[in-house]
Amino acid sequence: MTAPPRNVYVDSLESLPANLRAAVERRRDVLGPGYKLFYDRPIEFVRGEGVYLFDAHGDRYLDAYNNVPSVGHAHPYVAERVSRQLRLVNTHTRYLSSPLVDYAERLLAKHTGALKRVMITCTGSEAVDLALRIARSATGERGVVVTANAYHGVTESAAAISPSLGLPLDSTVCPVPAPAHGDGKALARAVAEAIDRLNQRGVGFAAFVSDTLFASDGLFPAPEGVLAPAVAETRRRGGIFVADEVQAGFARVGASFWGYRRHGIEPDLVVMGKPMANGLPVAGVAGRAELIDAFGEQSRYFNTFGGSTALIAAADAVLDVLEQEELAANADSVGSYLRDRLLELAAHDWRLGEIRQAGLYLGVDVIGDQGADPHTARLLVNGLRDRSVLIGATGPTAATLKIRPPLPFSRANADELVAKLEAALQAT
Amino acid sequence: MTAPPRNVYVDSLESLPANLRAAVERRRDVLGPGYKLFYDRPIEFVRGEGVYLFDAHGDRYLDAYNNVPSVGHAHPYVAERVSRQLRLVNTHTRYLSSPLVDYAERLLAKHTGALKRVMITCTGSEAVDLALRIARSATGERGVVVTANAYHGVTESAAAISPSLGLPLDSTVCPVPAPAHGDGKALARAVAEAIDRLNQRGVGFAAFVSDTLFASDGLFPAPEGVLAPAVAETRRRGGIFVADEVQAGFARVGASFWGYRRHGIEPDLVVMGKPMANGLPVAGVAGRAELIDAFGEQSRYFNTFGGSTALIAAADAVLDVLEQEELAANADSVGSYLRDRLLELAAHDWRLGEIRQAGLYLGVDVIGDQGADPHTARLLVNGLRDRSVLIGATGPTAATLKIRPPLPFSRANADELVAKLEAALQAT
Repeated sequence: MTAPPRNVYVDSLESLPANLRAAVERRRDVLGPGYKLFYDRPIEFVRGEGVYLFDAHGDRYLDAYNNVPSVGHAHPYVAERVSRQLRLVNTHTRYLSSPLVDYAERLLAKHTGALKRVMITCTGSEAVDLALRIARSATGERGVVVTANAYHGVTESAAAISPSLGLPLDSTVCPVPAPAHGDGKALARAVAEAIDRLNQRGVGFAAFVSDTLFASDGLFPAPEGVLAPAVAETRRRGGIFVADEVQAGFARVGASFWGYRRHGIEPDLVVMGKPMANGLPVAGVAGRAELIDAFGEQSRYFNTFGGSTALIAAADAVLDVLEQEELAANADSVGSYLRDRLLELAAHDWRLGEIRQAGLYLGVDVIGDQGADPHTARLLVNGLRDRSVLIGATGPTAATLKIRPPLPFSRANADELVAKLEAALQAT
Repeated sequence: MTAPPRNVYVDSLESLPANLRAAVERRRDVLGPGYKLFYDRPIEFVRGEGVYLFDAHGDRYLDAYNNVPSVGHAHPYVAERVSRQLRLVNTHTRYLSSPLVDYAERLLAKHTGALKRVMITCTGSEAVDLALRIARSATGERGVVVTANAYHGVTESAAAISPSLGLPLDSTVCPVPAPAHGDGKALARAVAEAIDRLNQRGVGFAAFVSDTLFASDGLFPAPEGVLAPAVAETRRRGGIFVADEVQAGFARVGASFWGYRRHGIEPDLVVMGKPMANGLPVAGVAGRAELIDAFGEQSRYFNTFGGSTALIAAADAVLDVLEQEELAANADSVGSYLRDRLLELAAHDWRLGEIRQAGLYLGVDVIGDQGADPHTARLLVNGLRDRSVLIGATGPTAATLKIRPPLPFSRANADELVAKLEAALQAT
């Protein structure tokens, strides 16, 4: 059992100022040790606006990390739509709801034509869990293939297919290496071998579940199409392909809008989450009609809060803002610009290795004498935090800088990030 | 495999007016057949206020069903607290959050002293699922005892311990009859036998999970203490007792505030949900420190939206309103009043059988020549809907009227409900 990467979490209270230490201890006393905090010196934010967060002293931080408030912190239009609905009524899906059906149609129109149905949950974990139920119900099998450092959620079933959590894998789960070198045929071969192993164990093959950006594996967005051979192999072997778009979806990757579109594939099921309602709990599963219908005929599924009126107002408002503010195009243009600026920086500092990017999702490998260098990555993440810029780390050893700002991120924001990363490198 | 009770759902489109039928069909086309609708003639509500809901024609319905908007539909104070927070910032638990810690302390103070920690999720299903992970991690066993028509949620693991869904039970789940006759020792004996069966299957015993009102089994709130012997037996056999307070909690049962307090027991884990934030997705697990801490040390658990600032504002506002409007006392007094009025009605109509009540949760058995009569129950639920009063049905055959209004329900509201039930009975 591998310990989960902890390098972006506070893990020593000794060095904290007394008031901060007291706040962390008080928190642990009621929430327990499962609640990790970012950074060696944790922060509390009391206000947000666009790509900025502010602490209680009024100090401003540039947010280059948070993908959930995707159209910007405290977006006034989203807040107003939700507020108006909360003052009117907020009720569930066992009554008719025109806004829900309108939104479902609008959302499905953003997908490939094969996806005809959508079920709304509250969280990405619930959506992954539901996709597993649908795939297992459709195939009559339980086995799932995932990438080696995948993260798909926290329900018991979602955690079981999330090797990055570091818990022992049971016999129904078989991991394959993520395509770190962009070799789609190698990925397809690995999936085929994993299916064989599941069959040898007597488990059977239900689904290949994959983040279309391989974000927790270290972010491997290239080349486009890398997933296609593995999806074809999944189909050939009677399995369901589940695209986990919780990280990639809703224009994070730019004009393609979904990660799977970059691969030219048609998923059987698509899981959506995090940025769907800019921070309120909206997630869901889109799928082929026969899969959703067969499951719905057999199983009563009612999600108390899923698809309720106020949450749908938030999700619908997010689609409005994405269109009105042309945030997909911004993700492409600013993402490329930021990648180029980081490449310039890396050309002058060997500690920055490969830089990978799709839209406004960037991974920057941090390299030391011995290869991947999580220690320096941690110093850089905390060095940026001390310079009021928020990023994180990803990958199996957390040695890849994770840059994933709200989508209204501008070129000037990118310049600030690069300048402060340069300063952090100089101080490290 | 038993089909799930469908008698409160629309199941024939033939008799619907054309525009309503079109709306239902359009909805099925995008959401699939898993999305059930209440009533033979479904309704869309566009506005709510207190215990009332309004359709697009401005027609007013008395809500005697919805427990989620527990402090009343569109409560202005709750809406304002959430709106204000959404305009400020809405962020997650990997930053420090004083409102989260304040709320966690306030919530734990409402519980018995043995419960020292709380973890916040979005949905009751997630909370049940997390409680199962904690219980299985603590015991190293997987077997769970539940009541025979229990409902605990929709994640794969929560659905697996929910016999009311009508799906086949796997070997890790063993059902026991709910205490319909109020015999706590019989329940304890059944739990002991179920534990024996789990052990015989080689599964082992992790937890006894029980709704403290046995709501989906038909609502059996009496006598107080009926759960105590089964909880003692659970402990004696090394298992964890999980109180599912999703239905009973947050003053639904009156001044005792939680269902478990009525039984004089100390649960190891308590699952909370539905009414916790008056309709926004807030749920959670409170537990003994050693259970939560052992799980938290071993497992990274991060719920993206769980405990985020805007949701905590809603949950905190609900506690304010419960106190300010003295809704626990109202649940006791109006609940007893409504029970007495229903007893008067039942004295004159033999079709109303046993009436069971705890606070503002009431179950009324509907009786025919052959005993429990789901057909008449369905006619009454729909007859009340046609008289602008909303209730539901519960129990294994859905032959028990389920009355569970928002907590500001008044004696005048109770009178209206009883008068309209009398009219519906006369027309049936």
